[in-house]
Amino acid sequence: MAVPHIFRLVINYEDTDFSGVVYHANYFRYFERARGDLLGVQNLLRLYQDTGIGFAVYRAEVHFKEGARYGDRLEIRTVVTKESDYRLICDQSVWREGGTAPLVKATIQMVCVNQDQKLVPIPGLVVALLDGTHAG
Amino acid sequence: MAVPHIFRLVINYEDTDFSGVVYHANYFRYFERARGDLLGVQNLLRLYQDTGIGFAVYRAEVHFKEGARYGDRLEIRTVVTKESDYRLICDQSVWREGGTAPLVKATIQMVCVNQDQKLVPIPGLVVALLDGTHAG
Amino acid sequence: MAVPHIFRLVINYEDTDFSGVVYHANYFRYFERARGDLLGVQNLLRLYQDTGIGFAVYRAEVHFKEGARYGDRLEIRTVVTKESDYRLICDQSVWREGGTAPLVKATIQMVCVNQDQKLVPIPGLVVALLDGTHAG
Amino acid sequence: MAVPHIFRLVINYEDTDFSGVVYHANYFRYFERARGDLLGVQNLLRLYQDTGIGFAVYRAEVHFKEGARYGDRLEIRTVVTKESDYRLICDQSVWREGGTAPLVKATIQMVCVNQDQKLVPIPGLVVALLDGTHAG
Repeated sequence: MAVPHIFRLVINYEDTDFSGVVYHANYFRYFERARGDLLGVQNLLRLYQDTGIGFAVYRAEVHFKEGARYGDRLEIRTVVTKESDYRLICDQSVWREGGTAPLVKATIQMVCVNQDQKLVPIPGLVVALLDGTHAG
Repeated sequence: MAVPHIFRLVINYEDTDFSGVVYHANYFRYFERARGDLLGVQNLLRLYQDTGIGFAVYRAEVHFKEGARYGDRLEIRTVVTKESDYRLICDQSVWREGGTAPLVKATIQMVCVNQDQKLVPIPGLVVALLDGTHAG
Repeated sequence: MAVPHIFRLVINYEDTDFSGVVYHANYFRYFERARGDLLGVQNLLRLYQDTGIGFAVYRAEVHFKEGARYGDRLEIRTVVTKESDYRLICDQSVWREGGTAPLVKATIQMVCVNQDQKLVPIPGLVVALLDGTHAG
Repeated sequence: MAVPHIFRLVINYEDTDFSGVVYHANYFRYFERARGDLLGVQNLLRLYQDTGIGFAVYRAEVHFKEGARYGDRLEIRTVVTKESDYRLICDQSVWREGGTAPLVKATIQMVCVNQDQKLVPIPGLVVALLDGTHAG
């Protein structure tokens, strides 16, 4: 079983809405920050500069169970699986530090696209970065 | 078959990212603006002020097929179904004006919560507003 | 005295934070939507596609007097002055519909930049669009 | 001369727009994250829970000199001065790591407000936190 990558963040004013909890769309930002942290934004930048290839979210299934609040210290836990030559499956969840159940659970399918937004195979560099992550 | 409610918007700088298309999390904002337009933000405000009851997204399944770009005039099409006393199902999609296929398709499950973020039945007012919409 | 251009919007969940009012950074989004509406996003898109020229905010002075709230119907009032060949001054303010004082007042200096983010003179098309606006 | 507090962040997709640089309004988010880091979000949370007192931006003057890009590692440098019993002046700037000139420079005036958004004096706790910061 894969050990999840953990990305930490603190909830600030900008993250919440007047209902008192985090605005639901913002969890997608945290999931992406966590994926960037897992693969290394510098690596993704070099990939983009060298080849014009970037990532796009293709499908997302998200279950919002409980809202995070201002001041919460969150962990984004991420496990990435290469499902095919064209698709990565990211199992991602949001936890309060020390929490016993996730606040949000998501399955996010990522693809790679070139600068014309056309589908391309997952680059070898990305596969290597993922292997390096899981080996760690 | 229900006639979808249509909400229009124009894509601006704030909506896009450096890849040239709309940042994926932003579609959730448009879906919510469309739901607010369908039910009437003034009605939802009065409901919140009178009862403390608001809406929360409970589950979302989204399929991102094509990215919208700066200057695009979009239509958000929404059909809401009351699935149970506690849950609304919103079938929502994003279309370019005059387009032949949706850019994004989503099924979003909404619940109502009180000020403690506890689940409450969908208020009669909301049901009446939905009936009024569909009768139109 | 120039008649201000008016752009209307309704405050939604996404606009607010847990303090109950609009998150301060969001007014900059509304100011930009208003400027896009004044000049026409389709015109700005064509300018960008034909010449690679777009707008950038160069300086901003903003005075936040009162916070807008969920459900508020706002007017963004905008007067644009061409200060020099390189700079537009946008006097922009946020009003509640029917309000007697602005919630937010801003002076925003805009410049034009090419695709390398280098300063270029304000294009003739933009000047013509502004003249058309004020003639109206 | 006060030693600035330094807060670091990495620019991600969500931060940019289609022009390739960071969307201008987002710098206000970074400035606030930096202020939260300086005072401690947990301290601000406790203050809010105990007294209902929070912060609001009252005035901002910002000079945008150069745009940050995807992958940039930024430093937000912050010096806070208590100008009066009611107002903090935050001199904040955005630097690329190792950069020789700031990308953005801002002077941001903060006030404290109670839950009715009415002005209140800067709480002693905040003053003590600031003194602790500067003593460090």
